[in-house]
Amino acid sequence: MYVRNAWYVAAASDEIGAAPLGRTICGQRMVVFRGAGGAVSVLEDFCPHRGAPLSLGRVREDGAIVCGYHGLVMGSDGRCIGMPGQRVRPTIRAYPAIERYGFVWVWPGDKSLADPANLHPLPWAESPEWAYAGGLYHVACDYRLMIDNLMDLTHETYVHATSIGQREIEEAAPATRVESNAVITSRFMSNIAAPPFWRAALRGNHLADDVPVDRWQICRFTPPSHVMIEVGVAHAGHGGHAAPADKKVSSIVVDFITPETETSIWYFWGMARNFNVADTALTATIRDGQAAIFQEDVGILEAQQRNLTEQPERHLMRLNIDMGGFEARRILERLVAEERNDLLRA
Amino acid sequence: MYVRNAWYVAAASDEIGAAPLGRTICGQRMVVFRGAGGAVSVLEDFCPHRGAPLSLGRVREDGAIVCGYHGLVMGSDGRCIGMPGQRVRPTIRAYPAIERYGFVWVWPGDKSLADPANLHPLPWAESPEWAYAGGLYHVACDYRLMIDNLMDLTHETYVHATSIGQREIEEAAPATRVESNAVITSRFMSNIAAPPFWRAALRGNHLADDVPVDRWQICRFTPPSHVMIEVGVAHAGHGGHAAPADKKVSSIVVDFITPETETSIWYFWGMARNFNVADTALTATIRDGQAAIFQEDVGILEAQQRNLTEQPERHLMRLNIDMGGFEARRILERLVAEERNDLLRA
Amino acid sequence: MYVRNAWYVAAASDEIGAAPLGRTICGQRMVVFRGAGGAVSVLEDFCPHRGAPLSLGRVREDGAIVCGYHGLVMGSDGRCIGMPGQRVRPTIRAYPAIERYGFVWVWPGDKSLADPANLHPLPWAESPEWAYAGGLYHVACDYRLMIDNLMDLTHETYVHATSIGQREIEEAAPATRVESNAVITSRFMSNIAAPPFWRAALRGNHLADDVPVDRWQICRFTPPSHVMIEVGVAHAGHGGHAAPADKKVSSIVVDFITPETETSIWYFWGMARNFNVADTALTATIRDGQAAIFQEDVGILEAQQRNLTEQPERHLMRLNIDMGGFEARRILERLVAEERNDLLRA
Repeated sequence: MYVRNAWYVAAASDEIGAAPLGRTICGQRMVVFRGAGGAVSVLEDFCPHRGAPLSLGRVREDGAIVCGYHGLVMGSDGRCIGMPGQRVRPTIRAYPAIERYGFVWVWPGDKSLADPANLHPLPWAESPEWAYAGGLYHVACDYRLMIDNLMDLTHETYVHATSIGQREIEEAAPATRVESNAVITSRFMSNIAAPPFWRAALRGNHLADDVPVDRWQICRFTPPSHVMIEVGVAHAGHGGHAAPADKKVSSIVVDFITPETETSIWYFWGMARNFNVADTALTATIRDGQAAIFQEDVGILEAQQRNLTEQPERHLMRLNIDMGGFEARRILERLVAEERNDLLRA
Repeated sequence: MYVRNAWYVAAASDEIGAAPLGRTICGQRMVVFRGAGGAVSVLEDFCPHRGAPLSLGRVREDGAIVCGYHGLVMGSDGRCIGMPGQRVRPTIRAYPAIERYGFVWVWPGDKSLADPANLHPLPWAESPEWAYAGGLYHVACDYRLMIDNLMDLTHETYVHATSIGQREIEEAAPATRVESNAVITSRFMSNIAAPPFWRAALRGNHLADDVPVDRWQICRFTPPSHVMIEVGVAHAGHGGHAAPADKKVSSIVVDFITPETETSIWYFWGMARNFNVADTALTATIRDGQAAIFQEDVGILEAQQRNLTEQPERHLMRLNIDMGGFEARRILERLVAEERNDLLRA
Repeated sequence: MYVRNAWYVAAASDEIGAAPLGRTICGQRMVVFRGAGGAVSVLEDFCPHRGAPLSLGRVREDGAIVCGYHGLVMGSDGRCIGMPGQRVRPTIRAYPAIERYGFVWVWPGDKSLADPANLHPLPWAESPEWAYAGGLYHVACDYRLMIDNLMDLTHETYVHATSIGQREIEEAAPATRVESNAVITSRFMSNIAAPPFWRAALRGNHLADDVPVDRWQICRFTPPSHVMIEVGVAHAGHGGHAAPADKKVSSIVVDFITPETETSIWYFWGMARNFNVADTALTATIRDGQAAIFQEDVGILEAQQRNLTEQPERHLMRLNIDMGGFEARRILERLVAEERNDLLRA
C-alpha cells in the first residue's frame, strides 16, 4: 500500500544526464529524462507502439524522447509527436515532475492534485550556510520498515555500535507526538561521552571532543515517506539543542524513502550541516561515514523483510520505542483509505 | 501458444557430438543425441526409472542412450532395451527427427503427421555456390516478438544505427502480402548511400563501395517461426534486386526461431551468400558482424518482454510497418486453433 | 512431508563457534548458538519484537542471545529476559537440542516427546578405535531422493564409475528387509577386483591391493532420514564381511539428511573407519575422496528434482533395486500419518 498523491523523490539531479533513466516508483515503471533547456520529464517507460522501454532510447534536441526500437517520438507531455512515414498520435502517461533542492520529484497519483506547493520544504538546500552530501541505496524491504528504522534510533546502539551507537540511547526514553500528518519522536541525553562519529564532527567544527556532551535526536516523519532527523551534540551544560553555535555541532539526517515495489525501495539518504560548510574534505568524510553506517541497516532490514514475508500472519510487538513508526503507519493507512474513497466517489 | 505439428530446428548439426544434449523445445525437455552411424535421435529427457535427465548419461556404441544414474538403456525409439538384472520395458516419448541442411529438426507434435517433405527447403545449404555461417542465441522473449522484429526492419535505423541502419529505411514504406501460409514484407530503396555493413560486403565482392546503390529487403515468414530475408545492394541503376551478379552483393539472412518456453527462444541465426564463397575470412567477418548486430536486438527484445509481462492487458499499436508480424500472428493463431480442433475431434 | 518428532542433525559441532548460526530445518528458520558453558541452544530465528533474525545478533556471556536490531534479549528457553527501559516478556519457540557425537541435534516437533534416548546411537563416535571425517553439502532436492540414492548403490556403477563403481555391483542383486522402522538393503560380491577407492583403502591398511576381494554394502535406513552404510572389502576367501581384521578394510558411510525445505536438504556426510585410525593423512585423503564422489551425486539429484518438479504427475518405476528407498518411504508415510492423527486427537 502506497500513498499515491504525493511528491516522491524519483532521482537525484545528478543522476539525470544525457541518457534517460528507467526507474520503477510505487510499482510504476517510469523513464526520467532531461529535455530542452534541461527541464526534467517523467513518462511511463513503455512505448505505445510495441511496448519497448523508452529508457533504452535517446533524448532529441527538442526534448522529445525517441524509442530505441522503431523510433516513435514522444513529447514530454506523453503525446506521440510522430514517426516518419506514419500519422500516429497515441499518448502515454506523463507524470507531474519538478526538479528542486537537488532532486527530481515525481507525483505518481492523480495529476490534477499535484501542487508544487506541497513539495517538502528543504530550506537548507538553497542556503549557502549549509552543506549537503548523500547517496542512494536500493533495499529489498517494505518502505515502512525503513520508516520504523528511522523513527526509532534505539537500534543505533546495536546496529551501529562502533560509530553512533551508545548505551545511553536506549536508556533515554523517546517521546512521540503527532502534529497533523507529521510524527515527531525526540530523545535527549545529558552529560554523556560522544560516540566516535560525533567526536569526529566536534573536531570537524574545531571543538573539543573529549568533554561531556548533551546529545539530541529529533526524528520528523511526514507523508508519504520522508524522515528528517535533527541530530547533534553540544558541550554539556550549554543548553543542549538550544546551545549557541560555537558550543555544538548539529546536522539534519535526510531520508527520502521512495517505494519501488511493495517490498523494495529507493533509499535517498544524506546529511545537511551548517558548520564548516566550505570544508569539502569534511563533507566527503561525513558522506563516507554515513554510507558505511547506513549500509549496516540494509543487511538487517532485508533479513527482517525475508522473515516477515515468510510469516505474514505473525504479530509484532509495539514497544514505547516503536511509537514513531506506529503513528506514521496510522497516518499512511488513513491517507491510503482516503485515496481509495476518493477513487470510489469519482 | 505454439504450433506443434511442424519441424523446428532443435540444434545445429555441429552441436551434437559424442555427448547427449538436453534442450527444451516448445515447453518439452528433450535429449538430442547421435547414435549408431551418426543418426540423430530425440527423446524425452526423462528416464522412466527415476526421472533423471537422460542428457546426463552417455550414448552406447549401438546408439542407445544409457541413463547416468542407474544405467537404464533406452533405444532411439524410446523403448527401454534393458537394464542388467531387470526385465523392464517402459517407453518414453520419441520425437521425429531429421538431420539436414546442417541442422537437426524435431517435430514436437503428432508423430503420425511428421512428413519430411514438409521440411523448410534450404537449397543454398546444399549448393557449392553458397557459403553459410551462423550462431545461436538464447533470448528471454516470446518467439512472436522475434518474428515481429524480423518482419519489420524499420528497427534497423534505431537498433543498428552504426551497421545496417540508415534513415532511408524508415522513409521507404514496406509492402506486405500473404501467400497461403507465407507472409512476405518487402522494402526497396533507390539511389542511396550504402551503410557500413554493406560497404564492407561490396568490398568483399570486389565492388566499389562509394557509389550510390539500390537496396532491398524481402522478409519471408513461414510457419512455425522461420524467417528468411533476402537482403542486398546493387550499384544504382542496374536493376536493383534484378541487377546482374557483377553489380550487386546479396545474401539470405536465416532465422530459425525455436520456442523454448512461452517467453524464451533458441534463436538460430546466420547468413548465406553466393558471392566470393571460398573466402573463409570473409565468412568469419560477416558472421562476427552479424553476431554483434543481432546481440543489439537481444537487449531490446528482453526489455520489451519484461514490459509486456508486467502489463499483459495493454493494447499495442499496429502501424503499416507492423503488418508483416501481424499477418504472421494471424496465421499462427489459425494453425493453433486448427490443431486444437483436431485434438478435440480425435 | 517431514517426520517432525525426531532428532535431526542441525549442525556439526565445529560449525557453532562464537557467532550464532541461522539454519532452516524442516521449513522452520532456526538459530543455533552456544551459550553459557558451551551448551547449545536452538530457537526460532525471529525476534518477537520486530521480526529481525536473531542469527544476526550476538550471544551474551550468560548465554542469552541479543537481537542485533534493537537489543531484545532472549534466553535459551525462548523467553525474553528483557530490554533496557522496557518490561516485555514475549516468548518464541525453543527447540529441544542436544550436542553429542560431534553433532548438534534438534527436534522440530512436539517438545514433550523429545527423548534423548531416541538419539541415533553412534558408538564409533565415542570410541578411540575409530576415526571420523566428513562434510556438509546443501543439495536442492527432496530429502527422499537422497534416501533413494543411498539405499540403492547400483548407481555407483554409473555415477561413480571412476572411484567406487564397478560392473559387479549391478550384477549382484540386493536384498531388502524391514525390521521395525529400519530398512536394511544388503549386497555381497565375491572374488572381484577392488575398484580404485578400495585399492587405496587396502594400501592404507597395509594390505595387498592387487588380489581378488569380497565386497559388501549393508545400507541401513532409520527414521527420520539417517542412512548408515557398512562397506568394505576383504581378501577373497577369508569370510568377506566376517573376515578377520587383518584381512579386510571396512568402514561406515555416515549420512544424515536434514530437510531444509520440501525440495532442499542439508546433507551431512562422512566416513568412520576402524583401521589405521591414527593416520590423519589417510583420514584427509578419505575425506577428500568422499567429497569428490558425493559431489557427483549432487548434480544428478538436483537435475532429477528439476524433472520431477516439472512433471509431478509422472509415475516412476519401482525395480528390485529400488526396494530400500521404497520401504523407507512407506515407513515415513506411516509416521507422518501418525503424527497427523496425534495432532487431530490433541
